[in-house]
Amino acid sequence: MVLVTGAGIDTKLLAPLEERHNLKVLHLPGPLDEARLGDHLRRHVRAYLHGGEERATGGVLRKAGALKVIAFVGVGYENFIDVPTADELNIAVTNTPGAATDAVAAFTVGQIINANWLIPHHLGPPVPGWKNPGEMPHELGARRVGILGMGANGRRIAEILCDGFHATVTYHSRTRRADFERKRKGRLCYRGSVSELAEVSDILVVMVPETDETRSMIDSSVIDLMPRGSVIVNTARPAIVDPYALYAGLRDERVRMAVFDGFYDPDSDIGSKLRRDFGDRLLVTGHIASHTQETMNRMITQAVASIDNYLTNGTDQYEVGNRRDKCGEAPRVTCGQSS
Amino acid sequence: MVLVTGAGIDTKLLAPLEERHNLKVLHLPGPLDEARLGDHLRRHVRAYLHGGEERATGGVLRKAGALKVIAFVGVGYENFIDVPTADELNIAVTNTPGAATDAVAAFTVGQIINANWLIPHHLGPPVPGWKNPGEMPHELGARRVGILGMGANGRRIAEILCDGFHATVTYHSRTRRADFERKRKGRLCYRGSVSELAEVSDILVVMVPETDETRSMIDSSVIDLMPRGSVIVNTARPAIVDPYALYAGLRDERVRMAVFDGFYDPDSDIGSKLRRDFGDRLLVTGHIASHTQETMNRMITQAVASIDNYLTNGTDQYEVGNRRDKCGEAPRVTCGQSS
Repeated sequence: MVLVTGAGIDTKLLAPLEERHNLKVLHLPGPLDEARLGDHLRRHVRAYLHGGEERATGGVLRKAGALKVIAFVGVGYENFIDVPTADELNIAVTNTPGAATDAVAAFTVGQIINANWLIPHHLGPPVPGWKNPGEMPHELGARRVGILGMGANGRRIAEILCDGFHATVTYHSRTRRADFERKRKGRLCYRGSVSELAEVSDILVVMVPETDETRSMIDSSVIDLMPRGSVIVNTARPAIVDPYALYAGLRDERVRMAVFDGFYDPDSDIGSKLRRDFGDRLLVTGHIASHTQETMNRMITQAVASIDNYLTNGTDQYEVGNRRDKCGEAPRVTCGQSS
Repeated sequence: MVLVTGAGIDTKLLAPLEERHNLKVLHLPGPLDEARLGDHLRRHVRAYLHGGEERATGGVLRKAGALKVIAFVGVGYENFIDVPTADELNIAVTNTPGAATDAVAAFTVGQIINANWLIPHHLGPPVPGWKNPGEMPHELGARRVGILGMGANGRRIAEILCDGFHATVTYHSRTRRADFERKRKGRLCYRGSVSELAEVSDILVVMVPETDETRSMIDSSVIDLMPRGSVIVNTARPAIVDPYALYAGLRDERVRMAVFDGFYDPDSDIGSKLRRDFGDRLLVTGHIASHTQETMNRMITQAVASIDNYLTNGTDQYEVGNRRDKCGEAPRVTCGQSS
């Protein structure tokens, strides 16, 4: 059996796994808690296409005795799959890099415009509601845009803003992209640290993967350096921005608006306080930036190919983590036997 | 006295008129009906900076015995000022071309993304609400974008979409822009008629001024040719799109979403029917596309300079209409004396 999770998955794309590996498809489109996920994985699931918002914790994975491979739909798997435990259990984990870049970049640019202009707040009224000129938005070209992270998504956002909108963009990333900068002819500038970037960012776009180093990277020490009335656009993972620091930033009006695609745990105190106290200054969507028909089909096709590769050859180019027999050479370890 | 209308006007920018022409500033930020506007214009108003949504009809202008010049903030003055009557009364009318291009283009691109992705519908819910893959938006790069009108605004939108988003755009306008096309290297294609443009536009951007020729240009004969499930983005004047044709297009699902910045008269039957029956498929804002601080300041500074020029020299480069003594040579005709 192959377990498929997430709304908006076209299960017809799973056909190669049915035909070539004789796997029955079980599609669970709705939200899944740990107990229900565990119950399903226990039942002869050999492959798991993770397209939802559920967390495949270590505890859950230990119940999945027949599971050989998890294909994550997207790139930010760290928060959804306990990869160290999967490594330990010798379950392969793959992801789908590059497939969502155009969608994520266009969505992010749309949300930059929404947050800058407050378009969603102005839908409906027949005449503008400005009480004084200072309430009006600034032009995008008059805002300093900062991008944290220059991976595929960050670069695509920079391209759209520099080449299309003729904006001047500053960025910080571990790797400086000198060639990419040169092509933007002075429109793209580098800063050596997150703090230096924050100081010059009226709009700060967060576009780094979630890792131990990036979690809470945008904390109070960073937000306090941002210009008054700035906007944070986080279409990466929520946890990159420390929620307590965000709360303080919104309260002190240092942060005027914040954009998230996926938010903090709604059951957490700070998550619900943020929504309650500053709901009208948050533009929060439910992790939909990569949800276009084309991107989803591209990601699922790629994830299905990864499962197929793994089940056929024991390897796949998009595998992540550090399984012991990643090269297909070491013996298969079954659940509970590993060190 | 100089009458200034419209919300979000920084009246400090009127200082040159107070200093150089000894004009007292009367600022009326709220909505104005014809009767109230007439009452105010009757009272020694020599100059009128039109920054609101009110209509300076022929009847109103005939009451304005002392009025010499109207400076319209923006370009689409046709619907707000009865220029033929102003010509007849020898009242100069000016506008502010070019000042709003960057703002209107960025706003329009934001609304293209909003309408394509339905972002405003997805603000709030913690998980995506797609019930099946077909509900998901298409990627912008997978949509055929058509632009009607290649003036300054249309060209800027095309630049952003072609150069930034790498989209392929088709356009129609009275004047073909061969050089501009060539620079886009095959990403920008021309069609010889509105109908031919409609046939290939999943997203149709309307960006022509309102004139007798363009009013209701997008009628049923055009909408019926559009691909099923298309989007109309009208950030120009509402009347370019025939409201009855739009109603039928939404009802038949030929049109999936429609964007307007400024809408049909809310008191009209068809205006209220559209909102009642298809409110969730309309993204309507109250004529805010040019409402950024920078654009407003640029437009008002330009409008104030036009009033100053006219009162000093009897001419201004941004004058529109056909006054008899437009060159400052013929005698000044006072209200009621003209033919």
